[in-house]
Amino acid sequence: MDSNTSSLTSIATLRTENVKPLNLLVFQTDFTYKEGAVAAMYGVVRSVSRDVEIITATHELPQYDIWSASYRLMQYLRFWPKGTVFVSVVDPGVGTSRKACCALTKDGYYIFTPDNGTLTHVEQVHGIREIREIDESINMLKTDLRSCVFHGRDLFGYCAARLAAGIITYDQVGSAYDPREIVRLAIQEPVITKGKATGILEIIDPNFGNVWTNIPTNDFVKAGFSQGDMVHVILRHGEELLYDRDTLFARTFADVDKGETLIYNNELMHISLAINQGNFLATYHAGHGSEYHIEFMKK
Amino acid sequence: MDSNTSSLTSIATLRTENVKPLNLLVFQTDFTYKEGAVAAMYGVVRSVSRDVEIITATHELPQYDIWSASYRLMQYLRFWPKGTVFVSVVDPGVGTSRKACCALTKDGYYIFTPDNGTLTHVEQVHGIREIREIDESINMLKTDLRSCVFHGRDLFGYCAARLAAGIITYDQVGSAYDPREIVRLAIQEPVITKGKATGILEIIDPNFGNVWTNIPTNDFVKAGFSQGDMVHVILRHGEELLYDRDTLFARTFADVDKGETLIYNNELMHISLAINQGNFLATYHAGHGSEYHIEFMKK
Amino acid sequence: MDSNTSSLTSIATLRTENVKPLNLLVFQTDFTYKEGAVAAMYGVVRSVSRDVEIITATHELPQYDIWSASYRLMQYLRFWPKGTVFVSVVDPGVGTSRKACCALTKDGYYIFTPDNGTLTHVEQVHGIREIREIDESINMLKTDLRSCVFHGRDLFGYCAARLAAGIITYDQVGSAYDPREIVRLAIQEPVITKGKATGILEIIDPNFGNVWTNIPTNDFVKAGFSQGDMVHVILRHGEELLYDRDTLFARTFADVDKGETLIYNNELMHISLAINQGNFLATYHAGHGSEYHIEFMKK
Repeated sequence: MDSNTSSLTSIATLRTENVKPLNLLVFQTDFTYKEGAVAAMYGVVRSVSRDVEIITATHELPQYDIWSASYRLMQYLRFWPKGTVFVSVVDPGVGTSRKACCALTKDGYYIFTPDNGTLTHVEQVHGIREIREIDESINMLKTDLRSCVFHGRDLFGYCAARLAAGIITYDQVGSAYDPREIVRLAIQEPVITKGKATGILEIIDPNFGNVWTNIPTNDFVKAGFSQGDMVHVILRHGEELLYDRDTLFARTFADVDKGETLIYNNELMHISLAINQGNFLATYHAGHGSEYHIEFMKK
Repeated sequence: MDSNTSSLTSIATLRTENVKPLNLLVFQTDFTYKEGAVAAMYGVVRSVSRDVEIITATHELPQYDIWSASYRLMQYLRFWPKGTVFVSVVDPGVGTSRKACCALTKDGYYIFTPDNGTLTHVEQVHGIREIREIDESINMLKTDLRSCVFHGRDLFGYCAARLAAGIITYDQVGSAYDPREIVRLAIQEPVITKGKATGILEIIDPNFGNVWTNIPTNDFVKAGFSQGDMVHVILRHGEELLYDRDTLFARTFADVDKGETLIYNNELMHISLAINQGNFLATYHAGHGSEYHIEFMKK
Repeated sequence: MDSNTSSLTSIATLRTENVKPLNLLVFQTDFTYKEGAVAAMYGVVRSVSRDVEIITATHELPQYDIWSASYRLMQYLRFWPKGTVFVSVVDPGVGTSRKACCALTKDGYYIFTPDNGTLTHVEQVHGIREIREIDESINMLKTDLRSCVFHGRDLFGYCAARLAAGIITYDQVGSAYDPREIVRLAIQEPVITKGKATGILEIIDPNFGNVWTNIPTNDFVKAGFSQGDMVHVILRHGEELLYDRDTLFARTFADVDKGETLIYNNELMHISLAINQGNFLATYHAGHGSEYHIEFMKK
């Protein structure tokens, strides 16, 4: 019963083993719950099978934001049992020639998504073993409602449910294509030297107002930064200076007073910035993307 | 396992067959997750039975908005297996003499709701075979908390759980009454002639900012409009002109540039308006209801 | 199947019986669905066991608001089957010396939470029979991601899943400590005499804009107030007068016109104020906490 948790101990050791799809479906979309789209999509899953578990990862992804879809998937994928089937629908190109696909990661996760960049971070961290284009002629819901605007309901959700339920095999999703053809977003790598680290704000935590850089904590520490150090931090949005101050590399939020800024090691082991019980994002008009340059200098 | 999906192929062919309630409960309310109401309601369901599946359709319906409750139910009902038990609680009249009921549609769905207009669209599309008033003397949760403000928890959720769990039969919900007594909201029909279609904005997609008319795409096409046509569109809110422009009847969003308006066939086969990756609703101060008149003219 | 509902009939009669943990996990946090935290936490649960049911109470608690966490837990706990395992994560002190604990109530509910005041209302209403500090050396998720910012994922969710799955017993959570050491928030008691009741706004219903006092309806009625009475109500925020008006103690919202204020008996049998289909909270700039004094006088 406890055996799956061993899979969490090391994501680095990727074993290419054969993992069968579980009857476990995890959804992320930008649909919100403001209308009936989620309920229609889940209804299709239930009509395919009563035996597939439905889990909501989130339906609050920012609209059309493929970068966030890609990052979030990578953020939580590793914590699920191998064989879990994910459905990600952030699909501004629905109805165009963008491929609808199902990827299989090197470590055994299945991901249904438009092939529009959503696989970028997962490929970087987990690797893609195989990718198949969904064959619409056999894996699309048959209904009187002929429209091409809701692939979440009619294609991704429906086909994923059939795979998770064991009605079709992975091969039956559709034809495999070369993983080198996968659409990728541009990922920027940090530059880390002795006593200095520069990178970007890769993603935000919009709830608590924290910002997460693309600098791995392990590399940061190897560069000579230690918890307890005061570090000179400069954050720029393009040319505009947003933040320029000595800041504590803290072990925990409570190491600084309420309202004070800190550098911390986030839950994915990346260097991040926060205000203790405050909102760094709003206070310093920060955001995420390659225009948000950040620099850490040892003093 | 796959047999239920056949029910999706044609909603038009309504068969009045006997469908037993499934142990599958789908909830929609205007409660939000900002306080403990949903958790209390779901707790009551779980205390009734461990064997009833609980699915959240949405708890984000606009407050007191019976029209939205009615429309959303119709939007997703057809995608669920026959026998699914729905609970809809938008209930501004809680504690008044409005009836608390359970309707059975002609095609075999069960719906617990205040009889306050929520059944309007479902009746129009699915038909109501039978309707029963919940007998509070036997189907209300017994608790020290005697109040009449939370029927979602004490009456609808509790009684629906008992039906879905097989503890009571449909007959035991309460006495049947004449479906002709059902409270109905006024539905407006579109007027469609050769080369011209007029209707209203029937509902909005508040997430993506699209607006959905009450004009069926099939009728629109029969009136001579084709995908690829430029169509003259006039939208008024009462006397106020909101939009007056030639607009493409597009096959897909990507047929127009980002930021451009298009006419499209929505997921329920109705004519709709959107801005590609933009927000028609906010841009043109649109809304939904009978005051939002829309006119399409062939050029 | 129906036996659990008897537990709802009287919360006053607390029986200290031995209740085994159910494989039923109920979560409340202040994480929101804006990023991947919930999905990571639920993934850990699923990796521990496929046999534990996951229910979302809410992830929309106000940020860092321990008072709300405490109140909401008390609001819905009683409606769940005995043995249900709750996880509450509002944790501004994560990484400090605050204890991570699992409490067992006198009537048999298990609650995983930081011991930071979250148990205040539950202790008052249900009583705490036993409390244990989670032993991080054995009950923390083993992963390459060593950080101390996400105990929801790595400690509370993981350990709760192991208890709910029967992998560990309650004793194996960690060492018991004296319930008298539990961190408590200050609760204010109302003062109720013949024809007069004074108290505070204890919590709000942020969705419908209602305010809930700490005055039990039973005591209010014993003090001589009856449904149908006009009652003189004075609400102050500190020195500032917010509301001073004769108001109907109504049986139901519809007893007053739309837009009118009423006094009503809320779903937890406490005296509350609302505007029928309006928003008392916004209209009168009300809030909750000990600075919001309210006074009811019989006329």
